[in-house]
Amino acid sequence: MSEQIVIVGFGPVAARLVDELLPAVRSGHARLTVVGQEAEAAYNRVLVADLGVGRTTADALALADSAELVAEGVDVRLGVRVKRVDRARQQVALSDGASVHYDRLVFATGSRPVIPNLTGINPDPSSPVLPAGVTALRDLRDAEVLRQAVNGGKRVVVLGGGVLGLETALAAAEEGATVTVVHNGPHPLGRSIDRGGGAVLAAGLRRCGVRVAGNARSTGVEHNAPDGGFSALLLDDGSAIDGDLLVISCGVRPRTELAEGCGLSTGTGILVDHRLRAHHEPHIFAMGDCAEVRCPDPGCAACRNAKGPSGLVGPGWRQAEWLAGYLTLLAEGSEADAEVLPALPPEQPGVVVLKARGMNMAVAGDNAAEPWDEEALTAGAVNGRPRLQVSQWADPEHGRYVKMTTRGGVLEGLVAVGMPRTAAELVGLFERGAELPADRSLLLRLDGPDQLPGGGAADPAGTVCRCAGVSGAAITAAVTGGCSTVADVSKATRAGTGCGGCHEDIKGLIEQHFQAAAA
Amino acid sequence: MSEQIVIVGFGPVAARLVDELLPAVRSGHARLTVVGQEAEAAYNRVLVADLGVGRTTADALALADSAELVAEGVDVRLGVRVKRVDRARQQVALSDGASVHYDRLVFATGSRPVIPNLTGINPDPSSPVLPAGVTALRDLRDAEVLRQAVNGGKRVVVLGGGVLGLETALAAAEEGATVTVVHNGPHPLGRSIDRGGGAVLAAGLRRCGVRVAGNARSTGVEHNAPDGGFSALLLDDGSAIDGDLLVISCGVRPRTELAEGCGLSTGTGILVDHRLRAHHEPHIFAMGDCAEVRCPDPGCAACRNAKGPSGLVGPGWRQAEWLAGYLTLLAEGSEADAEVLPALPPEQPGVVVLKARGMNMAVAGDNAAEPWDEEALTAGAVNGRPRLQVSQWADPEHGRYVKMTTRGGVLEGLVAVGMPRTAAELVGLFERGAELPADRSLLLRLDGPDQLPGGGAADPAGTVCRCAGVSGAAITAAVTGGCSTVADVSKATRAGTGCGGCHEDIKGLIEQHFQAAAA
Repeated sequence: MSEQIVIVGFGPVAARLVDELLPAVRSGHARLTVVGQEAEAAYNRVLVADLGVGRTTADALALADSAELVAEGVDVRLGVRVKRVDRARQQVALSDGASVHYDRLVFATGSRPVIPNLTGINPDPSSPVLPAGVTALRDLRDAEVLRQAVNGGKRVVVLGGGVLGLETALAAAEEGATVTVVHNGPHPLGRSIDRGGGAVLAAGLRRCGVRVAGNARSTGVEHNAPDGGFSALLLDDGSAIDGDLLVISCGVRPRTELAEGCGLSTGTGILVDHRLRAHHEPHIFAMGDCAEVRCPDPGCAACRNAKGPSGLVGPGWRQAEWLAGYLTLLAEGSEADAEVLPALPPEQPGVVVLKARGMNMAVAGDNAAEPWDEEALTAGAVNGRPRLQVSQWADPEHGRYVKMTTRGGVLEGLVAVGMPRTAAELVGLFERGAELPADRSLLLRLDGPDQLPGGGAADPAGTVCRCAGVSGAAITAAVTGGCSTVADVSKATRAGTGCGGCHEDIKGLIEQHFQAAAA
Repeated sequence: MSEQIVIVGFGPVAARLVDELLPAVRSGHARLTVVGQEAEAAYNRVLVADLGVGRTTADALALADSAELVAEGVDVRLGVRVKRVDRARQQVALSDGASVHYDRLVFATGSRPVIPNLTGINPDPSSPVLPAGVTALRDLRDAEVLRQAVNGGKRVVVLGGGVLGLETALAAAEEGATVTVVHNGPHPLGRSIDRGGGAVLAAGLRRCGVRVAGNARSTGVEHNAPDGGFSALLLDDGSAIDGDLLVISCGVRPRTELAEGCGLSTGTGILVDHRLRAHHEPHIFAMGDCAEVRCPDPGCAACRNAKGPSGLVGPGWRQAEWLAGYLTLLAEGSEADAEVLPALPPEQPGVVVLKARGMNMAVAGDNAAEPWDEEALTAGAVNGRPRLQVSQWADPEHGRYVKMTTRGGVLEGLVAVGMPRTAAELVGLFERGAELPADRSLLLRLDGPDQLPGGGAADPAGTVCRCAGVSGAAITAAVTGGCSTVADVSKATRAGTGCGGCHEDIKGLIEQHFQAAAA
C-alpha cells in the first residue's frame, strides 16, 4: 500500500505534519506533497514581530528545510497556490498549471489578518494589498517594513489591543520607536481581561513607554507622507493619530475559500469532526488555524461549547501530531487500527500570556465576575453547585493585579498582571483543575521580595512551553544531556519553538543546572 | 491658696479628672465637688451592651468608688442635677436646692443618645422617656432591659449601623437573641468604611447570625405587644420588622443645654480653646463628649480641620489628665507655670475598631478612593505632592478585605475586615505615619495560616489599649510585676478600662509571659 498525501499550505502546523509523516514516507507507505504559497518553507509566524524589531533572525524563525525534505523524498512546491480542488477526481490544480492527485488531502491553509473597514484601505479580501506604510505584520516582508521603522526611530501606530498587538508595541517601543496602541473598549485585550486587570495593564503599557488610546474608533487612514504613504490614523471623533507606520493587529480569520470552493462545509473555519475529517468527506482533512472542530452529530456534548479555531500554534501542533499518526495507519492499510485510535482530547480553554521586558500578564477562563457581585457575597451553594467566588489583589501603584475566580475552590478564571510567579502558579492550578489554598493570599507570596529567583513555584512536572507542550523536567533532562542554550533545547525538545514566551524560563532552567553543577 | 473646683457630671472622663486631682485635694490646694445625675458613681458606659448580654457585671463596670472618694475629702453629690450656673456669682444651683460656689467649673456633662424622629416615640429632648420595649442602651437600667430580652431568646431590632450598634447586635445574637440590624445606606458603618469593606462586613454579620436590613428608612414604631410595648419597626416602604425590643443606636449628641443656659458659646459641643477653657470665660472648662475644641482665633491652623467631639473615651481621658495638671497649677497659685504648660496635642484621626467573636474590623482615615480612580492609576506626583494610591485585597468568600490608601507610601486611610493581625499592624503604621513596605501584600501574611499565635506583628512599643494609651511593653511589665488577670492589669495600668476591645490582646500578653516562664 502507498497513499498520496497532499498538504495545502506550509506554515508551522503543516511543517509539523510533514515532520511526523517522514517515517511513513521513508518506509514507502506514503508519498507526500506540500504546497506553500510563500517562497519560503515554513517559518515561525508568531515571531514576525520579534524579527521586525531586530530581536531574532529569519534563520532562527525557520521551521523546515526544503532541501532536507526533498532529500527525504518529499515533494515540496513553494511559491505556488492551489487554485482548485476537484473532489470527484481527487486532484488539486496548482497556479503553475500542474495537477496533483491525492488519496488524502489536508487543508493547512491557516488564517489571514482581519483588515478593518477604513477609508483609504480597500484590500481585496482574497489577496489584500495594503497601501505603503500600512502592514498587518504577517510575513517576512512585513517584518522588514517594521524593522526599517524601528531602526529609524519612527512613529508606529498599532491598531488593535490584542496580545500580539501589545507585544509588538512593547518590543517596538523598547527598541526605540514611538508607539501608540489604538483600541476600542475601555482597556486593551477586550473581554479576555476584566476591568481591573485591564486598567493595570494599560498603566503598565504607559510605564513601558507605549501610548495607549482607548475607546477609539478608527474610521480611515491619511496618506500624506512624502512617499504618498501612511501619515495618520483618523478617528471617529475627528481627531487623528500621526505616525509613519500603521501596524494592523485586529485578529485573523481562517482561510476557507478554497474549501468552500469545492463544496465543503464551513463555519468560522472548515468544519471537521473529532478525527479532523471534513464533514461527509473521508479523503479531506483540515487542521490548525483554518479548521473548526465541530462534529456533525448535533447531540455531541464535546461540541456543545466548541469554539472556532484558537489561533494558537500549540493546538495546531497537537492536531498535526495526532493526524500524522492517523494518516500513517491509513497509509499502512491499518484502517481498523486507525478507527480505534483515540480521538484528540478537546483543547482546554485558552490561556493568554503576555511576556515582554518589564511586563507580564496571564489571563484565562471567565473573568467577568467581581468580588462584590451579589452571588459571590453570599456563601453556600445553589442547587448543589457551589457559588462563584472571587478573590482580588489590586496594587496599581506597583503595577500588580490578581483576580482568582473560583467555584468550589477551583479556578474558573484568572487574571494576573505584573506578578509572573503568581501567574505561572495560577495557570498551572487552572490547567490541572487543582484546588486553591483556602488563604488565597498565599499565592501572592510567590512574587514577594523574599522569594529566591526560580524558587518555590516551579513544579518540574508543570508545562514550561505551552505551544509544544514540554515540561520543565523534560527541559532539565535535555540540559543534563548537554544542551546549554535555548536553541539547543528547542532542537532537542521543541520547547521554545512556538510563541517564544518561555525562552526566559528555559534560560532559567539552564542557569539553574549550571549553578547546581558549580556548587 | 485653695481653690473650689466643681465638676458637673460624673461619667468616665469626670472620674479620671477626680482621680488626677486627688493629690491637690490631699495637699489642700483644691477642694473638689462632683455632681452626678445618676444614682451611681462613674461606670464604664461603653460596656453597657456587654452588661446587657451578660458578659460582664455592674461591679466590673465601676470606674469610681464614692465612699473612697468621700474618705479622701471629695464632695460627691449623686442623683442630683445642676439646674443653673450663675457665672456672675460663680455658683451652681442644684436640683436638691443646694448651691455650690466655684472658682473653677468643669463641664463633663457628656452626651445623650440621638433619638430619631419616629411616630410612636416622642421624647422630650431634654429628658427623653422612651416607651416600653424601646431603649437607647445608655445606662445600667437599659442594660437590664436588654438582658431580659437576650435571656428570653427574644427578637431584638437594632436601629443604626454604627460600631456600637453592631457590637450590641453581634453580642446579643451570640447570646441567643434573634437580632436584626436596620441601617440606612448600602452597608453598615456609613462613610467610615468603603463599599468593599462594607459589603464584606455585612456578609460577616450575616454569617454571625445577625440579619442586616440595609437601605432602610424607618418611619415609626408599632406598639402591639401584650404589655402595650414595642412590637415592630415600621419602614418607609410600608414593610415592618417585628421584634420584642428596639435598641436605638443612632449616635450621641453633646449635652450643652446647661452651658447654653448660662450664655457660653457652643457649636456641636461647648466651645473651648486649646486649654479647654470656655470662650471668654477663664473660670469655666469643658472636656470629654460635651466639649468641642475650637479656639476663638479664626486663623488657628490646628482648628481649621477640627471636628466635633470624638465620642470616644480615650481622647476624653487624655483631656482629663491634662486638665488636672493645669487646674492643679492654678490651684497652687502657679499661674505662670500653668500658662506655659504645653497645650494638649490635637487628637489623631480616629481609628474605629470592631471586635467581636468571629468578627474583626478596623477602619481609619479616608477610605473613599478606589484602586481604579483616575488619579491612583497614574504614577508620579502633582505639584510635588505624591498621588493618592490604593492597594486592595478582597476575598469575600473567606470574609477578608483590606484596603490601604497611601500617599508617598504612608497610610491616609485603611480598612481591614476579618484580618486581625493585618489590622493591628496597619493601625500601628497609620498612627506612627510610617512607610509601608513597597510590596503591600507582605502585610497580608500576618494573617496567613503559617503565622504563630501572637507572633510577628506585635511591636512591644505599640499601643495595645487605645482608650487609656497603654503600650504592650507597659502591660508586659505589669504582668512581670505580678499581674495575672486582665482585671489586675487594668488596675495597675488602666489598660482595658475603656472599650474593652483590647482584653483579648492583654490575655495574649499574659499567656505569652507564663508560657515563656514555663519554657
